[in-house]
Amino acid sequence: MRSFLIIGNEAVTEPFSLNDIPGAGRMDVLCRCVSQALFLSHSIRKDVEVFLLLLGKPDPPKVVRIVSNELRRMSPDERNVAGHIRKALGVKATKEWTETNSGIFVTKRNLKELLSELSKRYNVYYLREDGRDMSEIASWIKDPLFVLGDHIGVKKEDEDVIFNFTSTILSVSNLSLMSEQCITIAHYILDKNRT
Amino acid sequence: MRSFLIIGNEAVTEPFSLNDIPGAGRMDVLCRCVSQALFLSHSIRKDVEVFLLLLGKPDPPKVVRIVSNELRRMSPDERNVAGHIRKALGVKATKEWTETNSGIFVTKRNLKELLSELSKRYNVYYLREDGRDMSEIASWIKDPLFVLGDHIGVKKEDEDVIFNFTSTILSVSNLSLMSEQCITIAHYILDKNRT
Repeated sequence: MRSFLIIGNEAVTEPFSLNDIPGAGRMDVLCRCVSQALFLSHSIRKDVEVFLLLLGKPDPPKVVRIVSNELRRMSPDERNVAGHIRKALGVKATKEWTETNSGIFVTKRNLKELLSELSKRYNVYYLREDGRDMSEIASWIKDPLFVLGDHIGVKKEDEDVIFNFTSTILSVSNLSLMSEQCITIAHYILDKNRT
Repeated sequence: MRSFLIIGNEAVTEPFSLNDIPGAGRMDVLCRCVSQALFLSHSIRKDVEVFLLLLGKPDPPKVVRIVSNELRRMSPDERNVAGHIRKALGVKATKEWTETNSGIFVTKRNLKELLSELSKRYNVYYLREDGRDMSEIASWIKDPLFVLGDHIGVKKEDEDVIFNFTSTILSVSNLSLMSEQCITIAHYILDKNRT
């Protein structure tokens, strides 16, 4: 399994207009992350999970979880992905995972609660620009959960939480890339190492 | 300079609805290609050009050219990129490049005419899944123009045109990736080789 947790610092926690996806706390960034994490050409990757931690108004925190193996009827364009997230945000979120569509779930948890659960089945890696080159240790990476920020990055208090679950900071580039580009390259590095 | 030419086999050649970008001949694929080719986090790459060859109805072929160094007021979300393409398609296309926005141009040329011009200042590489691993020859690549298809790929007759300008077929992955993922990885391979 491969997994990605993207922190949406201002991503809204209520249904939003599909005609202004960036206006929903830069939900466009998260949509692109979902798309790049899950899709190949004309197919969906097996064994990938994406977690979106939404910290924007009016009801943070919420987590949307997307499970590639169970996903149906999603296409890679931003508006389609956003429509699925929007639907999940229209359902009451509780401490349990509520399925809002095949393969899509919503819950009301904070970063610590989420990582407490996920660290039981994933090895947590924090993706940050100044980390160690991922390609150097790719062969050691098994069942990763890559945690990364959106356009704002990861706030100090959230970093402190992450460091309770991992001490490994990895980087995929010396350039400051967009979040979805980091995901594409993380897949690439791992794919290449499997061949 | 780095350059990408993406062939939009069915991408429309007239203004289209921003509420159904995939419906415009899968213009969403081309928008994501533009975004991934041009943007870094909070900045635009220097010295990148993107060419979109649009072969859909009602007035093919048209080419939209986007020059990173001259670009203003574009953001990486699909709808914003699509808005710029839409505007370019509302302007009469001639055999000359007509600027429709800062850094965005449109012309009426076919693949052969376009490659005839571009091959004078770029080294043409054809990106295809079964090509040679780009990472093996990255250090030799200078001033590349990467030619790639959209979700449909590149049709036989267009391949024949491409092979008049290059015999080098490169691949970035053994998996069948989406076009924009190939662009992200091509940048990654070249970036890594520069460091």
